Amino acid sequence: MSEQDRPARPRVGVVGLGAMGLGMARSLRNAGYDVGVHDLRPEVASAFARDGGTAFGSPGDLAAAVDVLVGVVVSAAQVESVLFGSAGAADRLRPGAVFVMCSTVDPGWSAALDARLAEKGVLYLDAPISGGAARAAAGELTMMTSGSAAAYAVADPALEAMSSTVYRLGDQAGLGSKVKIVNQLLAGVHIAAAAEAMALGIKAGVPAEALYEVITHSAGTSWMFENRMPHVLAGDYTPLSAVDIFVKDLGLVLDSARPERFPLPLAATAHQMFLQASASGLGAEDDSAVIKIFPGVDLPEPEVV
Amino acid sequence: MSEQDRPARPRVGVVGLGAMGLGMARSLRNAGYDVGVHDLRPEVASAFARDGGTAFGSPGDLAAAVDVLVGVVVSAAQVESVLFGSAGAADRLRPGAVFVMCSTVDPGWSAALDARLAEKGVLYLDAPISGGAARAAAGELTMMTSGSAAAYAVADPALEAMSSTVYRLGDQAGLGSKVKIVNQLLAGVHIAAAAEAMALGIKAGVPAEALYEVITHSAGTSWMFENRMPHVLAGDYTPLSAVDIFVKDLGLVLDSARPERFPLPLAATAHQMFLQASASGLGAEDDSAVIKIFPGVDLPEPEVV
Repeated sequence: MSEQDRPARPRVGVVGLGAMGLGMARSLRNAGYDVGVHDLRPEVASAFARDGGTAFGSPGDLAAAVDVLVGVVVSAAQVESVLFGSAGAADRLRPGAVFVMCSTVDPGWSAALDARLAEKGVLYLDAPISGGAARAAAGELTMMTSGSAAAYAVADPALEAMSSTVYRLGDQAGLGSKVKIVNQLLAGVHIAAAAEAMALGIKAGVPAEALYEVITHSAGTSWMFENRMPHVLAGDYTPLSAVDIFVKDLGLVLDSARPERFPLPLAATAHQMFLQASASGLGAEDDSAVIKIFPGVDLPEPEVV
Repeated sequence: MSEQDRPARPRVGVVGLGAMGLGMARSLRNAGYDVGVHDLRPEVASAFARDGGTAFGSPGDLAAAVDVLVGVVVSAAQVESVLFGSAGAADRLRPGAVFVMCSTVDPGWSAALDARLAEKGVLYLDAPISGGAARAAAGELTMMTSGSAAAYAVADPALEAMSSTVYRLGDQAGLGSKVKIVNQLLAGVHIAAAAEAMALGIKAGVPAEALYEVITHSAGTSWMFENRMPHVLAGDYTPLSAVDIFVKDLGLVLDSARPERFPLPLAATAHQMFLQASASGLGAEDDSAVIKIFPGVDLPEPEVV
C-alpha cells in the first residue's frame, strides 16, 4: 500500500516483560517505536528503557499514554489485575484505544472481556501468541487474532511489527483464544506422547539418538517431538517452557470444554501425566521432563565437560 | 562403490501384493529385477506378471527360486502362514537366502523368528516399513531394519531399490520392530489427537479450514495432522489406511509393553478411541474417521459435484 494509505503509527505500550513480552517490546523498538513498558518488577522495565523506550510505574499510567496496550501476562487473573486492579489500565485507556490480549485464556472469558471494555469505549483484540521467546525477540511470532475492524485499524501496524504471521479469524472476540486452546491441546498431547514413545523405545534397548533420527524422518513425527526431544538427548531440562505451564494450559483446555460437556480423552490423559510430573517435584523443569514419570528408563545424562 | 565391489544383484521375490507389497514389487521391477511374486489371490499375482516378472502358486515355490524373499503381509500370523504353513517358504529357502520381514509385529516375536530361521540356515532381516502406498510404488519407502551383516550383504541391493532411506539399527533382530512400534504409538496418538482437537475447535464454532491453516503453521502440528485432516476437511473417509489398522497396531504397541509392566497412558487412550470408532461401525473407514466418535460436531460434508 502507498505511504498515504498506511495507518498512522500508533503509540504502543507493553505490559508484562517476561520472556515473550520482552521480546515483543524489543521487536517494536527495533521497528522504530518509542515503546512504553510496565512490569511488576520496576527494574526490568527500567533496564529495557535504558536502550530506548519509556518505563511506567503502573498499567494505568502506561495506558493513559498509548493508543495500543499489549498485555503479555501469564493468565486471565493477571489480565484482570492489569485492567481492573488498583492503578489498572481499563479506566485510563482513551476511548478508541485498543487492548491487545496475548495470554492463553478461556475463550468465553475473552469474549466477556470484549464486552466489558466496550462499555468504556475501549476496543479489544483477542490475540494469543505462539512461537517461543526466540521468535518473540526476532519479531517472528504467530498471532491468532479476532476482533472488530475498528480495533485492527488502530493496532495493525503494531501487530505486524511483532509477528511474522497474523491470523485474522473473524470479528468475534474469543475466536483467537479458541484456536489457541486447540493448539495447546495438541502441543501438550504431543510433548507427552513424545515422552511416552521415547521412554518405551529407550526402555526396550534402542539407542535414544537412533530413535530420534528415525522418528523425525517418519510419519510419527511432530513439531514438538523435533523441538523437545533434543532436550532429552542432551539430558538438559533447563526450562525453556516448564512442566507447570502445561499443567495450567491443559487444565484450561479441559475447563473450556466442560461447560459444553465435550469429552477430551487425550487432553485429560496428558494433563494427568503433567500433574504426575509436577507432583514428583518436576514442575519447574522443562516440559520435556514429563519423560521422568516413566520408571526404570535409562535416560541420557548430560555430558560432563 | 565401483562396479566390481557392488554386491551381485540377488534374485528377489515378494509375498503379499497388497497396497504396499504391490508398490514394492513394482519398484523392484522398475529397477530392472525379474521379480517373483505370490499372493493369496492368484489373479493379482498374474496381473502383476503380465507387465514383467513371474507369478508363483505358493510361497514355497517362490522361495525355492530366490535369494531374497520379501514378506509384505499384514500380521505376524500371516508371516507364520507364509513361512510355516502348507507350501510354506521356510523349508524351501536355500541356506544363505534371506527372509525380509516387513510387517508390523511384536519385537520379541521377530527376534524369535530370527532364531527359528537360523536353525534352517536361512538369514533374516527385521525390516518394518513406513511411508504409505504412494511412496511404496515410487521406491521411496523408509525401512527400519536390523540383522546380521551376512543378511545385509545379500539383501542390500533389493532394499535400496525399494526405499529412499534404509535405517540400519544394529545386528539384533527386533530392533527394527521396536522402532516401528514407537513410530506406530506416535502415529496412532497423533491421528486421535488431531481428531480430538479438530472436533473441539469445530464444535466451538471455528471454521475447519481456518483451524487447519493455523495449526499446520504452529507448534501444535504433526505429520499426521497435516496428512489426515485434509480428509476431514473434504468429508472424504475413503480408507487410505483404515481405523481397524490402528485398532490392531496400537493393540500391538500395548501388548509389546505389558510383559515389561511398562505403562503407556496415551497409547491406551488412543486405542480406546479407535476401538470406539470400530465398535460404531467405522472400522473400514479411513483412520481419520475416528473424529466421528465426538458427538454433536458439525463435520464438513463432501462437495456434491
